[in-house]
Amino acid sequence: MRIGNLDGRLVLAARGGAVDVESASHGRFGSDPQEVFARWDEFSEWVRSLNHATLPVHPVEFDTLRSPVPRPDQLFAIGLNYRDHAAESGFELPQFPPVFTKFRGAITGPSGPITLPGHTVDWEVELVVVIGRTARDVDSAQAWDHVAGVTVGQDISERTVQTAGPAPQFSLGKSFPGFAPMGPWLVTVDELRAGGLDPDALKLSCSVNGELVQHGTTADMIFSVPALIATVSAVLPLEPGDVIFTGTPAGIGAARTPPRYLRPGDRLVSTIDGIGELCHHFVPAPGSQEM
Amino acid sequence: MRIGNLDGRLVLAARGGAVDVESASHGRFGSDPQEVFARWDEFSEWVRSLNHATLPVHPVEFDTLRSPVPRPDQLFAIGLNYRDHAAESGFELPQFPPVFTKFRGAITGPSGPITLPGHTVDWEVELVVVIGRTARDVDSAQAWDHVAGVTVGQDISERTVQTAGPAPQFSLGKSFPGFAPMGPWLVTVDELRAGGLDPDALKLSCSVNGELVQHGTTADMIFSVPALIATVSAVLPLEPGDVIFTGTPAGIGAARTPPRYLRPGDRLVSTIDGIGELCHHFVPAPGSQEM
Repeated sequence: MRIGNLDGRLVLAARGGAVDVESASHGRFGSDPQEVFARWDEFSEWVRSLNHATLPVHPVEFDTLRSPVPRPDQLFAIGLNYRDHAAESGFELPQFPPVFTKFRGAITGPSGPITLPGHTVDWEVELVVVIGRTARDVDSAQAWDHVAGVTVGQDISERTVQTAGPAPQFSLGKSFPGFAPMGPWLVTVDELRAGGLDPDALKLSCSVNGELVQHGTTADMIFSVPALIATVSAVLPLEPGDVIFTGTPAGIGAARTPPRYLRPGDRLVSTIDGIGELCHHFVPAPGSQEM
Repeated sequence: MRIGNLDGRLVLAARGGAVDVESASHGRFGSDPQEVFARWDEFSEWVRSLNHATLPVHPVEFDTLRSPVPRPDQLFAIGLNYRDHAAESGFELPQFPPVFTKFRGAITGPSGPITLPGHTVDWEVELVVVIGRTARDVDSAQAWDHVAGVTVGQDISERTVQTAGPAPQFSLGKSFPGFAPMGPWLVTVDELRAGGLDPDALKLSCSVNGELVQHGTTADMIFSVPALIATVSAVLPLEPGDVIFTGTPAGIGAARTPPRYLRPGDRLVSTIDGIGELCHHFVPAPGSQEM
């Protein structure tokens, strides 16, 4: 199953288009994409019971898709979770996952312009995991059972703000408006498996103006999705609709010689096999001079 | 004005007790304490129009008060914001405020037990600011106009988790359940001023089992409340109901020789002049052996 957010309404992908969930369920499920996670098991069962061939399907314009998870109560983001990225960032391999947040005001959808607030804005393609069942002290072996699905994310980062101050702090520099895009669809783990994909070994990549800048596989995570769920849920409960940005592989701009950052007009495409892609372009801040 | 959360219902403090807002407003305002911030100006005007002498007042038991801000969309927390605390923590003075989060699952009210998940749990009394009007690119001089009120907070911290890994990261170790208490009341700035207090110079302190362990004044913040609102709102909008934990003065347990941490049975009282106090006691994790 793939679900999405079509201009603010919860939809189900079917036959190359989208089924409006509120309408198809005769109001049993509402239109708000965020609300569905609190009733994820019931919703999944309803979707399985549908006869897809008879559902009225609407065409989908890519640029009317929004974040499939628009308002998570908790957004966890993981730093330094791929060996090659930890190395390029000059850090030792973490023994415990570094966790920060991207504040809610940073969330946006899979396309559209993103304003550049500075001259050191960087890319980080990431697998994003969305919780579908409350997870508290969950063992790794059961962790995927608590996941509603996965989507593509970008952990866009303003490096100057991120590294300002004596204690490295990630959250603020990664939370400018538009810096947490997600989409285009939320894909369930069984759908990935049905397509022959291993949810623990998904290829992910991103390109700037068509040039490949990051490529890797989630199999190279230091802390796998199940390990992250186990670790975080040992601290506090993960609730339906919560989100985990799981970290990025090597290839960020800040680690290049010379560093390379996003410029006005740049087009960033972020892809995960079996899920889809994000496509954003960058625009200067209003009133900025020479960007 | 002082507002609170009496067992899940929005109340207004009056004549030594509490007025139920939904009832007194004949349903104009609902019972949910979190919802009032989105209509803060309208609510404030309504409160000013009330004849307090004629309102039915209920008695308030301290232990039925909950967090006056139960579900903020964004919770910003500031590290190293007092010179003496930055020094005791071994950091240089920040040139830019380090911002992290305490995840929503950590929020609790002004009293009750808090479970100790480990042996290195520490205290940090803090002034907490709650936003009442959207703040975007706000100048310091106008910053207080965007604040609904202030309350007492504790940035309780599990130091082992907080310092695990190669990149210091605060958010997870400060987010065990109960690690973000707030209360007992949200107090408006005009109420503080009417009581002869300067909202930029409030005395704050905390004690463990009656022994004073932290005392300071918010006048000693490196980044004042207006400076914090200006800095954060230059990155992303602060929305009504958002919360800022503004940092703690010196006196934490980890900086003592030898370090001192919270133990089962310890009683932590956290006080800010003109606002009130939090009172928590600590209990061992179920199944823990020798704590």
